[in-house]
Amino acid sequence: MTFQRIAIIGLGLLGGSIGLAVRQHLPGATTTGYDRDPQVRKRATERKLADRICETAADAAREADLVIFCVPPGAMGDAAREIAGALPADALVSDVGSCKQSIAQALGEALPDNAIIPAHPVAGTENSGPDAGFATLFHNRWCIITPPEPCNLLLLTKLVEFWEALGANVETMDAQHHDLVLAVTSHLPHLIAYTIVGTASDLEEVTRSEVIKYSAGGFRDFTRIAASDPTMWRDVFLANKDAVLEMLQRFTEDLTALQRSIRVGDGDALFDHFARTRAIRRSIIEEGQDDARPDFGRADHDD
Amino acid sequence: MTFQRIAIIGLGLLGGSIGLAVRQHLPGATTTGYDRDPQVRKRATERKLADRICETAADAAREADLVIFCVPPGAMGDAAREIAGALPADALVSDVGSCKQSIAQALGEALPDNAIIPAHPVAGTENSGPDAGFATLFHNRWCIITPPEPCNLLLLTKLVEFWEALGANVETMDAQHHDLVLAVTSHLPHLIAYTIVGTASDLEEVTRSEVIKYSAGGFRDFTRIAASDPTMWRDVFLANKDAVLEMLQRFTEDLTALQRSIRVGDGDALFDHFARTRAIRRSIIEEGQDDARPDFGRADHDD
Repeated sequence: MTFQRIAIIGLGLLGGSIGLAVRQHLPGATTTGYDRDPQVRKRATERKLADRICETAADAAREADLVIFCVPPGAMGDAAREIAGALPADALVSDVGSCKQSIAQALGEALPDNAIIPAHPVAGTENSGPDAGFATLFHNRWCIITPPEPCNLLLLTKLVEFWEALGANVETMDAQHHDLVLAVTSHLPHLIAYTIVGTASDLEEVTRSEVIKYSAGGFRDFTRIAASDPTMWRDVFLANKDAVLEMLQRFTEDLTALQRSIRVGDGDALFDHFARTRAIRRSIIEEGQDDARPDFGRADHDD
Repeated sequence: MTFQRIAIIGLGLLGGSIGLAVRQHLPGATTTGYDRDPQVRKRATERKLADRICETAADAAREADLVIFCVPPGAMGDAAREIAGALPADALVSDVGSCKQSIAQALGEALPDNAIIPAHPVAGTENSGPDAGFATLFHNRWCIITPPEPCNLLLLTKLVEFWEALGANVETMDAQHHDLVLAVTSHLPHLIAYTIVGTASDLEEVTRSEVIKYSAGGFRDFTRIAASDPTMWRDVFLANKDAVLEMLQRFTEDLTALQRSIRVGDGDALFDHFARTRAIRRSIIEEGQDDARPDFGRADHDD
């Protein structure tokens, strides 16, 4: 039997989706929710993101057997301190953050008497806030759990079952490896997307209107990721600095090599590079991690 | 009255889509098609990509009033030489290539006696080949026409009407400006995507299987673009070298600045950059150049 009284702290895309997913998939469980923004609490009440929206984090946590922090990485410590004292001693503490080493440390310092098992559902959209969540966000997505050493195996099993109940596939790994993997599959792509959208916005010779009009040539794909929540992403890059800088270094070396091939007109080198990047997309589609339809199944071709 | 006998040279994604779109939108017109690959001609016949699939380019062009080259940029000159002598002197020559200065020059050298007005429909998917085309590819997409100086205005008007009939919005600009605009809205994004997919494939500490499993964190978006036709993209970077290198230089400067902000922990600089890239996506959606649904409307959340 997995958790029965789940407190969700932070009611944006992830927190809201967890609330809606619990209602759909774990009908026996009850949820409490809290967000420090009163407007978000109001909207969360209207959308019924949790069974009960509380006015304080402590209230939400008071009877929980699982509390999940769904706030930006840099806000985890403060959010956790708000429930210290109210949270039952046998409740498990978890989260959904995109960098695990720094968050494990912040939660551990704030709640030293509780078991803490961090988790990261690799799922999301470019939208954020209390209107962004939906119950199927975790379907067929991977959730990475990073158990501490040592780890309470009963609680770990219950957390695995919780995420599986929400439709996710679960994998465990150590926090350091998680941060390296996510640096390449998520953090670097976001940094690159934010950069290129900024570069395109700042040109003098090409107007912003031209960038927008002709964005279907490829640029528009990057604007989706670059529309993600700036607070969360600021925190991610600060919290996972070393791994991001390492991946960025490799990316820059590879880009410099391609740049040189363009400059000297080495068509064979360009072709060889471009030809070997197709296979990975095929694998991603085969493993159910992306839409198989052309152009992600975009509907905009039909007026 | 726009063109009535359209020869399509090259029957991949673009050529095939033109053939299907002409049948849907210009029922009075007839199309001939040619591809140098016999397998492609066979498949084009089966899919009826043109009314008549010919065994030689000269055959396809013999009675045309418009010939459109839909081959990679580096193959334009050779393809055009194949129809020299067969093409009627009053036929208009055009193309769909992604770089306009080099293609205008190649077509002009191969077909010095014909009027040439290059065009570039900013539309496509990651798929290529004779199975990739569809009739609505150009709906609500921009087609950029780059008229030479001087230009036959009657032929220009007919070409504008042709593309508008296929559902496109038409804009004209000079070829040099086109190449700069597309360097930022299309060529640089493709180069970046090819680079990051290559970087992720080459890691030792993170396995390929991990990259694939956790790609929903952002990486998978880049794999779509990096699955595009390698021959075409090799040619694009060779043909539009100067503009691509200029944009790449700006991108690298901007990336270096963000890298420094991460290294020194300047959260305010990161936040300011990330916060200003949201507006451009809103504009792209408002102007109908992308799907407004979260995650491009991907269907993979529902099993």
